[in-house]
Amino acid sequence: MITHRSFTPEPWGLREYELDLSILAQTESLYALSNGHLGWRGNFDGGEPFVINGTYLNAFYEERPLPYPETAYGFPEAGQQLVNITDGKIIRLLIDDEIYDVRYGQLLEHDRFLDFRAGVLERRIKWRSPAGKAIRISSTRMVSFAERSVAAIVYEVEPLDELTRFVVQSELVANEPVQAAAIDDPRAATAADSTLVPEDVWQGDRKVILVHSTRRSGLRVAAGMDHLIEAPDRSSVATESSPDLGRVTAAAALEPGSRLLIVKFVAYAWSSVRSVPALRDQVDAALSEARLGGWEGLARRQREYLDHFWDQADIVIDGDPEIQQAVRFGLFHVLQAAARAEERAIGAKGLTGPGYDGHTFWDAGTFVGQVLTYTHPGGVASALRWRHSTLPMARARAEQLGLKGAAFPWRTIHGEEASGYWPASTAAAHINADIADDVVRYVGATEDVEFERDYGVELLVETARLWASVGHFQEGTFRIDGVTGPDEYSALADNNIYTNLMAQRNLLAAAAAVERHPDRAAELNVQPDEVTTWRSAAAAMVVPFDHRLGVHEQSEGFTRHQVWDFEHTTPDQYPLLLHFPYFDLYRKQVVKQADLVLALHLRGDAFSHEEKLKNFNYYERLTVRDSSLSAATQAVIAAEVGYLDLAYDYLAEAALIDLEDLEHNVRDGLHLAALAGGWIGVVAGLGGMRDYGSILEFAPKLPPGLSRIAFTIVYRGRRLKVEIGRRSATYELLEGAPLEIRHYGQPVLLEPGSPSRRGNPARPRGLPPRPVQPPGRAPLPRSQFRRDIVSPGPARGSRSRSSPGGPSAAIPDR
Amino acid sequence: MITHRSFTPEPWGLREYELDLSILAQTESLYALSNGHLGWRGNFDGGEPFVINGTYLNAFYEERPLPYPETAYGFPEAGQQLVNITDGKIIRLLIDDEIYDVRYGQLLEHDRFLDFRAGVLERRIKWRSPAGKAIRISSTRMVSFAERSVAAIVYEVEPLDELTRFVVQSELVANEPVQAAAIDDPRAATAADSTLVPEDVWQGDRKVILVHSTRRSGLRVAAGMDHLIEAPDRSSVATESSPDLGRVTAAAALEPGSRLLIVKFVAYAWSSVRSVPALRDQVDAALSEARLGGWEGLARRQREYLDHFWDQADIVIDGDPEIQQAVRFGLFHVLQAAARAEERAIGAKGLTGPGYDGHTFWDAGTFVGQVLTYTHPGGVASALRWRHSTLPMARARAEQLGLKGAAFPWRTIHGEEASGYWPASTAAAHINADIADDVVRYVGATEDVEFERDYGVELLVETARLWASVGHFQEGTFRIDGVTGPDEYSALADNNIYTNLMAQRNLLAAAAAVERHPDRAAELNVQPDEVTTWRSAAAAMVVPFDHRLGVHEQSEGFTRHQVWDFEHTTPDQYPLLLHFPYFDLYRKQVVKQADLVLALHLRGDAFSHEEKLKNFNYYERLTVRDSSLSAATQAVIAAEVGYLDLAYDYLAEAALIDLEDLEHNVRDGLHLAALAGGWIGVVAGLGGMRDYGSILEFAPKLPPGLSRIAFTIVYRGRRLKVEIGRRSATYELLEGAPLEIRHYGQPVLLEPGSPSRRGNPARPRGLPPRPVQPPGRAPLPRSQFRRDIVSPGPARGSRSRSSPGGPSAAIPDR
Repeated sequence: MITHRSFTPEPWGLREYELDLSILAQTESLYALSNGHLGWRGNFDGGEPFVINGTYLNAFYEERPLPYPETAYGFPEAGQQLVNITDGKIIRLLIDDEIYDVRYGQLLEHDRFLDFRAGVLERRIKWRSPAGKAIRISSTRMVSFAERSVAAIVYEVEPLDELTRFVVQSELVANEPVQAAAIDDPRAATAADSTLVPEDVWQGDRKVILVHSTRRSGLRVAAGMDHLIEAPDRSSVATESSPDLGRVTAAAALEPGSRLLIVKFVAYAWSSVRSVPALRDQVDAALSEARLGGWEGLARRQREYLDHFWDQADIVIDGDPEIQQAVRFGLFHVLQAAARAEERAIGAKGLTGPGYDGHTFWDAGTFVGQVLTYTHPGGVASALRWRHSTLPMARARAEQLGLKGAAFPWRTIHGEEASGYWPASTAAAHINADIADDVVRYVGATEDVEFERDYGVELLVETARLWASVGHFQEGTFRIDGVTGPDEYSALADNNIYTNLMAQRNLLAAAAAVERHPDRAAELNVQPDEVTTWRSAAAAMVVPFDHRLGVHEQSEGFTRHQVWDFEHTTPDQYPLLLHFPYFDLYRKQVVKQADLVLALHLRGDAFSHEEKLKNFNYYERLTVRDSSLSAATQAVIAAEVGYLDLAYDYLAEAALIDLEDLEHNVRDGLHLAALAGGWIGVVAGLGGMRDYGSILEFAPKLPPGLSRIAFTIVYRGRRLKVEIGRRSATYELLEGAPLEIRHYGQPVLLEPGSPSRRGNPARPRGLPPRPVQPPGRAPLPRSQFRRDIVSPGPARGSRSRSSPGGPSAAIPDR
Repeated sequence: MITHRSFTPEPWGLREYELDLSILAQTESLYALSNGHLGWRGNFDGGEPFVINGTYLNAFYEERPLPYPETAYGFPEAGQQLVNITDGKIIRLLIDDEIYDVRYGQLLEHDRFLDFRAGVLERRIKWRSPAGKAIRISSTRMVSFAERSVAAIVYEVEPLDELTRFVVQSELVANEPVQAAAIDDPRAATAADSTLVPEDVWQGDRKVILVHSTRRSGLRVAAGMDHLIEAPDRSSVATESSPDLGRVTAAAALEPGSRLLIVKFVAYAWSSVRSVPALRDQVDAALSEARLGGWEGLARRQREYLDHFWDQADIVIDGDPEIQQAVRFGLFHVLQAAARAEERAIGAKGLTGPGYDGHTFWDAGTFVGQVLTYTHPGGVASALRWRHSTLPMARARAEQLGLKGAAFPWRTIHGEEASGYWPASTAAAHINADIADDVVRYVGATEDVEFERDYGVELLVETARLWASVGHFQEGTFRIDGVTGPDEYSALADNNIYTNLMAQRNLLAAAAAVERHPDRAAELNVQPDEVTTWRSAAAAMVVPFDHRLGVHEQSEGFTRHQVWDFEHTTPDQYPLLLHFPYFDLYRKQVVKQADLVLALHLRGDAFSHEEKLKNFNYYERLTVRDSSLSAATQAVIAAEVGYLDLAYDYLAEAALIDLEDLEHNVRDGLHLAALAGGWIGVVAGLGGMRDYGSILEFAPKLPPGLSRIAFTIVYRGRRLKVEIGRRSATYELLEGAPLEIRHYGQPVLLEPGSPSRRGNPARPRGLPPRPVQPPGRAPLPRSQFRRDIVSPGPARGSRSRSSPGGPSAAIPDR
């Protein structure tokens, strides 16, 4: 668990008062900086100790062959893996004749702070060397939102007691070791030879640029560093370089009160087509630009960028400081993953770690896309333009699968299918409807007609064509057989309800879009009978229902399967996928993650309140949440059907997923979609926000234990603030033209400068008892686990408590 | 196609009159010799040309790691692969200063004959060297049924025109190249490093023994050769050896009329526990034994063994010489695969090639086992004792899968699951019922009570326990969800009808067996309520039926799936698995191989005649026969429901599968189960034989075009001959006590020495028209493709027509 005594809740940042090396890997992810284009894991400046080194450029990947014991037609032959590129974070330090390393000597003070408003990671250290020299180090690190290629570090050292000689080595290191130790978990990154091939070294005064390329994917990267150094007279600076190393060494003897200050600018550029000189000079130009504005310029623009974001996106939670912090932590990282991705994918872990090989999945749209649509809509447009750019690959894949239209990959970096286990990837065709859903939501919430015309229509048409060919008409119904829904503990089932309902929306949205854009439809050669088929298929879509039990079926036959033997499943057997074969899981009633319940949220318009309540109660007892993509959705439906305390518990689980390391693998990177789930739990859950395209609806409610929630969203060019109190909610149009919304189904016309307050209805009567989850799988009751009181501050005189490296005792189930 | 002008049908052998190197690989399989323990592919004595070299010992395998792009719990980590061991077939020849190789010079005469009664492979050659020397070579090769470790070759050369110097090098070669060229087909063997490690060399006079071991599987093999050499005075003999090579060289200058004769004895021994000296001496002893009896002794015992077999097993087909030949060819190879396997598995390809890595599958019991039960029952007992010996591994696998009892592997050599694609292996749980079925059939047909007590009960109990835990009761029914039936174009479906019905038999058989053997039941800790559960599950077993269509469903929901688009599938897109993804195949109505139709055969007692007819007609139009495990079963049901010409077509396809190379992969080895299907098509199909445990039933019928069929079987200690004429059938008890059988449901009491003739009923009236198969997938109409006239004999002066090597133009769809 991350939330231990090293940390304390703060409203606008993540502070660590104490260094516990047993959670070093986790903090490397939590403290990662990124702008969506460039990512730096929270590795120490000093380079060591580390567990996973990480410096990433979005979409800079290496190919690797995918081996199969038994191959078959259509199995992807090449995988893709995000590469740990040239590391510009490293600033090593020698004090007199001793290397600075927190594993030695005495760490007198350690304070790390990730500032959500300034967008910087600060670290303040007091350390006494084994020989007894006490020093202070302070560093502030930034990956710039304004200059997407640039990162920078302000690094300062000073002696505390007596004259001390310092040697600071600021480095640029290619082909560094990635992992301190090997692990064995299918969700982690695969081991691969991602060695970069040196191509060029360029050295200037206090400046080095290294150019490398990948062996198989044909990509080239240039990384450069430049420095401003302030030091007393008795100092020297040297610059050196070799193919895999750039080094600027500053040496100084300092008296107490004096200091050595280094501002390090780091810049990157990569391309699949540009030449070595072009990339080298591009990096040099970026370094010059960064030097010109200096650290202050970068810092000012960073804060401006974030001020604007928080104005559009902030959430206030009164009454639970931890959730307050966690929700903002999540929003900050969602922004970091998306801000400057610019027509590249948003990975499942952003650029915070090597987990899942850096791939993007469906949740980048379905979860992260929901948040971005209403807080940073440009991020959605950018991600969808990336999807659009991959259409040639998706069309080729559809053809390979014997289908029409486009079949988007389950997991990829570049656009080709890179999954080696098709029952949970190719068969999970819902990703295509998820992308369409992201288009529909984005266009509806932004009225970005230009985007719809240029990108949206084609995405909708090609995915609708896919559905028309995946499914088939049978005796007046339209069936989609042999697919896998979101629940990865089932596979290859007929008429998965989530898939069918999302495909239905996809088909209808495509039909509507081609009517709005007949010119685009003509260009895409959309035939009238094609559109007729889409509408007929949508109208005839099978929605499986078990009349015996009075609940919908996750897929046909699901409710007749054996119920998983939860009673005899021990706590250490979760996640089940690490302890039971798919053969066992697939044929039983056990749900890894919200599937039908996700349909209750995203296709809430297809269910009555009564159906939602019955379905939710039925599936709660089957859902084990072995995926991070579940709790937020359960929070949303729990809130809708009336289980407010349960909604609060699930919201907390989603928001704290990484801060508490609930999945035990935050070492490999953050769970972006689950973090997005914090926002979803608040806005769609407690705020009851639904957007089915025509009008924004709210149904606010406050769980026991919170005194107030307020959130701001952007919608159709407006900024809207919603405040939820115990008995009423207040809607305020902060910016933009008047807007009609709905509060519990009743229209509310919002005008600028005049907040509207509406009463919240009483809790529904006759609600069945709170549903039970499988034994041991209930979410932690938030009311018991809150930590409201801020701890007294840094524990002085602490030192590191255990050594880093492989899986530690603190992570029991690896 | 193998059946081209090089071949001509002969009743008791396979003769090749001409050498066509474009079908060299195929003939290497067709001419393979084996006794079930030791196998020699039909490679030339001269060593070259070859396509796939093969010398195999049953169960002598190497391990290889199974790589997965995305692994999961329970995926097998190690594969197994039959090893090409030390080659003792090679006898190289130098004429004057020219190497004998049929690719050079002129092949004046080539005659190869596999003699089904003598059990030897003869080759007679006249060849003129590039320099113009004409010689004659004759060799006769045998793998002994009587001495399971021993093979032998009689090799003779003589000059035809003038004095010629001959150098004959008889060799023992380890680590020879296995394949002349690489291929890419999932059904072929995987490439692997199976290099053997030399351990010992022992050299005597004209005798060499080499001992090697595998690198990973921990097995050791000794191979030895010894020679008798007859030569004129002017000759010399030398013996040499090195770790991977033994060589006996005989040199002689021969005048026309004189000859050089070499009798080569080869022996093998292997073990996972015995030492180098022990194995070496075991081989030496076997060589001594072979030398003592000499070639004549081996040949005599070989013929005796086969005479006995044909007395028990022969089939006579009057009116179609090709099918006559093909059926005996199949029986001969089935015997070769099983004869001396002795508690080792019978591989899918016997010991004829490296296909499927030498693994055994379910069909070893279900198809080969059927034939052996009634022709060579000791082979079934031996194979089932092998299964029994693997119970510890099967129990461990069941436990890993969260199941009770034993879960036998889908494919294996040694006993561990070695399949790397679980939806078509682990999920195909029916293999457990298939093994049980083999037990039931064997015990019923032999009344081998001792076997039942010592092996059968445990196999039945442990598989019944598996079913009780795989399935579950639900509202009065017993369901088996998420499994894969025989049809490999569907997977992970609920209540596969074949699986359910075979599991039903398994459960009832186990219940009955424990009642017959209460002592064994007690030893196996069988509880009374366990048996009650087995009976209840069997009684409540779901048998899915589509009331809409009036046919049974292959599995629940199958008949609602989209029908495969056969119209737009081109002939070159078969087999579908090489051109379409499983994702596409699994969710549509398309059947690779008899599945429900196999249930109509093996569980014919569970269906009415009317149901069989309707089901057969429905599934015929969906069945593409992309598996060799289909035609025979279709022949059986076609015959039963009344489509006699169709039955004949299917019978021909099964029988000719390898002689015609219908699957285009006979190069990798023969299809033992399909060859067994020739017998099944005759006996169960045209003979209408059914054995549901109590009484043997027949319903004989003769298709148009055949004038008589006769077959002999063994049953409960008797030998029984059935002759089928146009209007009647005659049953004759050749040996054993009186026996009651049924002829078309009517009891017939058979007594020794008094054949009983019974009339065949008229063809049923009102039979619907012959069912149609998917376009292009109808079997070849036998009436049009018969080649009744024996070709006039060897084409003189022929020579090789094309060069061997990789896939040739004659194999279009590789």
